[in-house]
Amino acid sequence: MDFTKRQTTIIEMLKQTSPMTGDAIAHRLGLSVPTIRADLRLLTAVDVLAARPKVGYVYQGDQLINVDYDDLYEKPIKDIMLPVTEISDDAAMQEAVSKLFLKDVGSLYVTDANHQLVGLISRKDLLRASFSSPNPETMLASIVMTRMPNIVTATPETTVREAGDLLLKHKVDSLPVVAAKGSHEAIGKITKNRIFQHFMESAK
Amino acid sequence: MDFTKRQTTIIEMLKQTSPMTGDAIAHRLGLSVPTIRADLRLLTAVDVLAARPKVGYVYQGDQLINVDYDDLYEKPIKDIMLPVTEISDDAAMQEAVSKLFLKDVGSLYVTDANHQLVGLISRKDLLRASFSSPNPETMLASIVMTRMPNIVTATPETTVREAGDLLLKHKVDSLPVVAAKGSHEAIGKITKNRIFQHFMESAK
Repeated sequence: MDFTKRQTTIIEMLKQTSPMTGDAIAHRLGLSVPTIRADLRLLTAVDVLAARPKVGYVYQGDQLINVDYDDLYEKPIKDIMLPVTEISDDAAMQEAVSKLFLKDVGSLYVTDANHQLVGLISRKDLLRASFSSPNPETMLASIVMTRMPNIVTATPETTVREAGDLLLKHKVDSLPVVAAKGSHEAIGKITKNRIFQHFMESAK
Repeated sequence: MDFTKRQTTIIEMLKQTSPMTGDAIAHRLGLSVPTIRADLRLLTAVDVLAARPKVGYVYQGDQLINVDYDDLYEKPIKDIMLPVTEISDDAAMQEAVSKLFLKDVGSLYVTDANHQLVGLISRKDLLRASFSSPNPETMLASIVMTRMPNIVTATPETTVREAGDLLLKHKVDSLPVVAAKGSHEAIGKITKNRIFQHFMESAK
């Protein structure tokens, strides 16, 4: 939430010196107590200040100000999306595994010669294949991928909350971000890990 | 934040009928406009209501109320931790992979005969081993694990924010939760995915 200039001044004063009585605060501002009463009431209602009987107002911290619902949940994913790690649809499993470790990512985006997304390969897909096939190294990686159109996509304007809901609902770790619904060209990706990181960064 | 009974009544009224003038709101409550002025000022300051010139007050939603910093970041992880999926330190790789898929988890906690944690095995560890060993199926799973004491642990009172910072700092996906610092008995685990889910559930 946004505070007025006067409210911000009061917060800064109390940060420096707590407790202060309403009289003392008004005096320092060169205002009357009734003039600042609404400000003090608001600041205590939102828990920035606490009013202690016979003591005065004390600064409680501005944790509530630091977290903004819109910044957390309504941010468009274009602001936080990650680059895609592509692999060609004729690559072998061994190459896919190497690329996964080299780039330290959880999924690979399989594309055709025109950079159109044809599928997704996760760490889980590769692990399953490696323990269920006699010669996994030489298999085509695209054999184990999840194929379009069975892939849920997002667009740059999808919000963090919407993307998070899709990831949970479809039990996937990664969503390709396409320029527009129906497009098969991945311009980025959004993952559970990236959203987790976004939430943790918003705490600072 | 907590609203007074009168503020809650005003919110409910505006949810039903928006816009309403200050006069109309006061009239419906059987109060004077000056009496409710501070309430209206507070509710608009926290963006629950918006004041539109020449129109009156409109309900804007209570998104800001739904998200509470302490609930999100200061919650102790004991409230959201997950059960541990254990595997014995004499299990073979094939058993570890099967268990990972059967339980649909991202990591296994390797324990000795006394249920003391001796290591952690991730999907990544298993995938690496499966492509770098000639006979991965019959290898001991514990060969590929990350060993205590190289494992970062948390305790039940660790907050979501502290656990999230540890996960990011140490680049791991899962932290064992032990009853007390120094203990090797995992009573639960906290993962990036679980924290992600916690944030998404808090958005509702």
